[in-house]
Amino acid sequence: MKRIVILADGTYPSSERTLKILRNADLLICCDGAAEKAISRGVIPDFIAGDMDSMPIELQREYSDIIRKSDNQDTNDLTKAVDLATSFNPAQVTILGATGRREDHTLGNISLLAEYAQECPFPVDMVTDHGRFFTINDSTSFDAVPGTAISFFTFDQSLKITSKGLEYPLDEVIFDSLWKASLNIVSESTVSLEFSHPAIVLIFEAE
Amino acid sequence: MKRIVILADGTYPSSERTLKILRNADLLICCDGAAEKAISRGVIPDFIAGDMDSMPIELQREYSDIIRKSDNQDTNDLTKAVDLATSFNPAQVTILGATGRREDHTLGNISLLAEYAQECPFPVDMVTDHGRFFTINDSTSFDAVPGTAISFFTFDQSLKITSKGLEYPLDEVIFDSLWKASLNIVSESTVSLEFSHPAIVLIFEAE
Repeated sequence: MKRIVILADGTYPSSERTLKILRNADLLICCDGAAEKAISRGVIPDFIAGDMDSMPIELQREYSDIIRKSDNQDTNDLTKAVDLATSFNPAQVTILGATGRREDHTLGNISLLAEYAQECPFPVDMVTDHGRFFTINDSTSFDAVPGTAISFFTFDQSLKITSKGLEYPLDEVIFDSLWKASLNIVSESTVSLEFSHPAIVLIFEAE
Repeated sequence: MKRIVILADGTYPSSERTLKILRNADLLICCDGAAEKAISRGVIPDFIAGDMDSMPIELQREYSDIIRKSDNQDTNDLTKAVDLATSFNPAQVTILGATGRREDHTLGNISLLAEYAQECPFPVDMVTDHGRFFTINDSTSFDAVPGTAISFFTFDQSLKITSKGLEYPLDEVIFDSLWKASLNIVSESTVSLEFSHPAIVLIFEAE
């Protein structure tokens, strides 16, 4: 199993990049609210995960063989889909459709990505029509395209980051609010970050 | 001056509620990226705030008398608009169009709302096509409609809240991730929250 794609119930993917990821999935898991939208576009998931609250009963009957229903009220449908993906031992999981409708879902899903990064033994990223969220958990370097808008988010207020390759260095940033390290610009082809201690940082690269 | 409305450069308002707020503003300030969209819909702002990077030069000439340009690179266009609104001593400021496009802008703008709540001597809320964000800063009660989806967000990980009027009480929640107190449901017509100490909490009520 190489790349599992999870389709969540936010805005349906519409950019060239997101539609390509959807098409090229080795295995596609739809959250129940997203399954109807996918099927109506001719995109048939391999599995449908969730509590099935958001799926019409006729569709549930028609697709009963690929439905993996879970009534656990402590996890949302996205986490149910990630748990199912984990059982297939994937090389990578990419989440689509996790943003763009109700803003509390958007905030929740993005912050869950930080949690998946800690819990999953494979990389998990989230691609939207506007860019890509991925996570790092310690000092690292990564390739980037100069001129790209880039933002950094963390919930660790004690973290200090020394950066290279950014128009506005992160050296003075205290992460006590989500906007503090947002809307930066990549200035070199490699971005290097040196952390004061390990911590989950979400990175958003605009498309 | 009663209610000042600020139109940011996210998704242009389209719900009945947001369009009504836009129509009924006592004074409308557009961020520069939003001004062109508003004007093309026949909505003429009283002022246009920002660094004018996102406004065509012809429009800048045509509307030069209402443009309040600021080149301060330490604040974004939304904060420039809030600063301008503050100079008019409003009773209330409502921000529209602050979400729905690039997710780093959405995260940044929502977290800036927490900052405005601390700094502004008037209430500031943010209304989207999907609901409303407002802030509280200590124990309080507020009216709500039973059945409404409601979410709570804070960056204060030491905060404890005792709640009444919610389907899932907040009493055990540790706010170490943004999803921890999201996707609750109002169960009574009054929601009461008792804080362990003053802290800014963002509340999202779904429409």
